[in-house]
Amino acid sequence: MLRYAAPIQKLIEQLQKLPGIGPKSAQRLAFFLLRSSPEDLQALGQAVLELKGEVRLCGQCYNYCTGELCPICDDPQRDAAIICVVEEASDLMALERAGEYQGLYHVLGGALSPVEDIKPSDLHITELIQRIKEDPPQEVILATSPTVEGDATAEYVRELIQILPDPPQITRIALGLPVGGDLDYADQVTLARALRGRAIMED
Amino acid sequence: MLRYAAPIQKLIEQLQKLPGIGPKSAQRLAFFLLRSSPEDLQALGQAVLELKGEVRLCGQCYNYCTGELCPICDDPQRDAAIICVVEEASDLMALERAGEYQGLYHVLGGALSPVEDIKPSDLHITELIQRIKEDPPQEVILATSPTVEGDATAEYVRELIQILPDPPQITRIALGLPVGGDLDYADQVTLARALRGRAIMED
Repeated sequence: MLRYAAPIQKLIEQLQKLPGIGPKSAQRLAFFLLRSSPEDLQALGQAVLELKGEVRLCGQCYNYCTGELCPICDDPQRDAAIICVVEEASDLMALERAGEYQGLYHVLGGALSPVEDIKPSDLHITELIQRIKEDPPQEVILATSPTVEGDATAEYVRELIQILPDPPQITRIALGLPVGGDLDYADQVTLARALRGRAIMED
Repeated sequence: MLRYAAPIQKLIEQLQKLPGIGPKSAQRLAFFLLRSSPEDLQALGQAVLELKGEVRLCGQCYNYCTGELCPICDDPQRDAAIICVVEEASDLMALERAGEYQGLYHVLGGALSPVEDIKPSDLHITELIQRIKEDPPQEVILATSPTVEGDATAEYVRELIQILPDPPQITRIALGLPVGGDLDYADQVTLARALRGRAIMED
């Protein structure tokens, strides 16, 4: 079968390795890049190549950063008495975008998953326990995703914190209907959780 | 607002320039790349950087290639008596994948579009006419897309070829129902075209 010119074929093969990008999208992206300016191409290629060189994990919370500590851990304005535990740095960014939270974070680097063979030792759980021991917070919010894996991870972490001497308060992020969501379209599990988590209305 | 570490932010911004990739996908891709091996990252970055260096346009049909002529124009087995005119090199590849066509191609590099300000001089139309004059084929198949732009382009090219002395036969790729498509789901315009283009059944 006829193939594209070698550099195009090579790029298409590399693009296909990315998540959510199949042969068709890879081809479309490659042809788009062929029509891009050399400057844009240079900028993208460099950004990919330089991604790993400078990026490291925050020494305290395991968020991505370029220095010793991430901008959040490094910010004296943040409330060090609360640690919010999330699976990924992208979850941290989602919470930051919400603009509600002023405490610190701890990024586990994933969730426990027998299927994907992710064990507690693959996550930054030991580091979280150590961190809580060294500088005890008042509260730890478990904000892993409400999935089977996220729930199991939250439960596992909760048990480990609970056995500490003088453990902090442990909370789980609220589960319920999404704002703007139609009750009619919500799945049964979400509806059940939303009912169970109902709160008294204040006036 | 908090931003990602600079190298991540830079990559996300570059990825967002790609077609069909919004802020969410760009972020997902960047985090995927952060978890990739340095070798994979290197391979992708290099593929992007080296894309333009080696790739040029075929001197005869304007397909992408690395040599003087593309593999199709360079193949003596192909029937030089037929030229199939397409908008993009990706259309050429789609036709090649169908495995039906044995002639040569001519890639226009797009379609006429007043909206996007694409004029005849932006496409390889003059070169097509010159090519037909120099080495007259028996047939020119106009295989631009059945869109407003593609139809207009086909009509424009047809008129230019028609006024040549001793013009070749000019054909348009068939329009009709897609194979495996449900008649019930076809749009009215396609159905009308399919009816108009009906062919006598042979036994």
